[in-house]
Amino acid sequence: MPRLKLGVLISGRGSNLQALIASCADPSFPAEIVIVVSNKSDAKGLDHARAAGIATAVVEHGGYRNRESFDRAVHDVLVGEGAELVCLAGFMRLLSSWFVETWHDRIVNIHPSLLPSFKGIDAHAQAIAAGAKLSGCTVHIVRAEMDAGPILVQAAVPVLPGDDEDSLAARILTMEHKCYPLAVKLIAEGRVQIDGDTAIIDMPGDTDDHIISPSVR
Amino acid sequence: MPRLKLGVLISGRGSNLQALIASCADPSFPAEIVIVVSNKSDAKGLDHARAAGIATAVVEHGGYRNRESFDRAVHDVLVGEGAELVCLAGFMRLLSSWFVETWHDRIVNIHPSLLPSFKGIDAHAQAIAAGAKLSGCTVHIVRAEMDAGPILVQAAVPVLPGDDEDSLAARILTMEHKCYPLAVKLIAEGRVQIDGDTAIIDMPGDTDDHIISPSVR
Repeated sequence: MPRLKLGVLISGRGSNLQALIASCADPSFPAEIVIVVSNKSDAKGLDHARAAGIATAVVEHGGYRNRESFDRAVHDVLVGEGAELVCLAGFMRLLSSWFVETWHDRIVNIHPSLLPSFKGIDAHAQAIAAGAKLSGCTVHIVRAEMDAGPILVQAAVPVLPGDDEDSLAARILTMEHKCYPLAVKLIAEGRVQIDGDTAIIDMPGDTDDHIISPSVR
Repeated sequence: MPRLKLGVLISGRGSNLQALIASCADPSFPAEIVIVVSNKSDAKGLDHARAAGIATAVVEHGGYRNRESFDRAVHDVLVGEGAELVCLAGFMRLLSSWFVETWHDRIVNIHPSLLPSFKGIDAHAQAIAAGAKLSGCTVHIVRAEMDAGPILVQAAVPVLPGDDEDSLAARILTMEHKCYPLAVKLIAEGRVQIDGDTAIIDMPGDTDDHIISPSVR
């Protein structure tokens, strides 16, 4: 069975890219990365991709007159490499509505909170300021509205006394690295049905193996 | 050491009242229920309280000209029985700002979502409509704003394919019955410090035993 072809967009170290690279290194994983695109030429994630023998491209946004023309250049690279699903992994550019519509239901993002709580760039700080005792991460299909769209996978972690943004971010990141490959796997296996603003996950026997599951001690 | 005296407000079956009754039946539990107040004379929770030998009172809101006069009557009952902490357990009346201020930091509520997600009366339906893959419950200190206030305890549960409001509510309810007694215990043991809008939980050795903890399979 052919593997789902991924295009991964990054701007920096792309630790979630590394998690995807590791998953795709397993031949039984139903997806492969065909291209990593960065809007910054010095993104550390490019080195990781090259080290894994994955094609890379740099599309620097400074060279384009507006958001959509930049996005069209990224789109051309993705299409040229045969990408079927776009994975955002620390990509620090807002996507144009043209791009989001062109890749409708085929762009995936990860956000470090249990959406719809704590949208935006400072999710960890928001969780701590709110005194939340649980936070986590969410993999979702990208819509025009930021940090919204059908939810694919979520995982929860405790917020501990004394946590600062860094310690909470590190704890959530370990979950991100499990959730992102899981979400890609579910899509690649055809188990995700998008129904408007929600994603229905089809699992044999109605199991909950798609959930990074909380359990109680 | 004297046990913390609880006044529990109910309007119906009060399943969380039953969880508190069960916890308080253990002599080593640091709290006891001194009064159960219902605004409805036919609330099933009154029977459970009486069966456990707990004093009950009915304050029917129909007899009062406004919210605050009703709340003052409830207040008088609570004070008369020596209550030190007010626990809302399915109490279906909005409390006046007078009551909330008078019992500042001494009113606890439980809400069937991971706040700040899904505030309001239809939390389960909201979680399903949003396609959330995790939901849960939150025990918090009551503030004038609905379903806001310092968070004491949270627990997460999966939202499964095929869940309806009832099945999700039942799953969350099992967590509610663990979280509410735990939150009361933490307060009774003096481990909760309210700092503005957040609750800091003081645990010996910085453990996380106060969290109904998610773990990953």
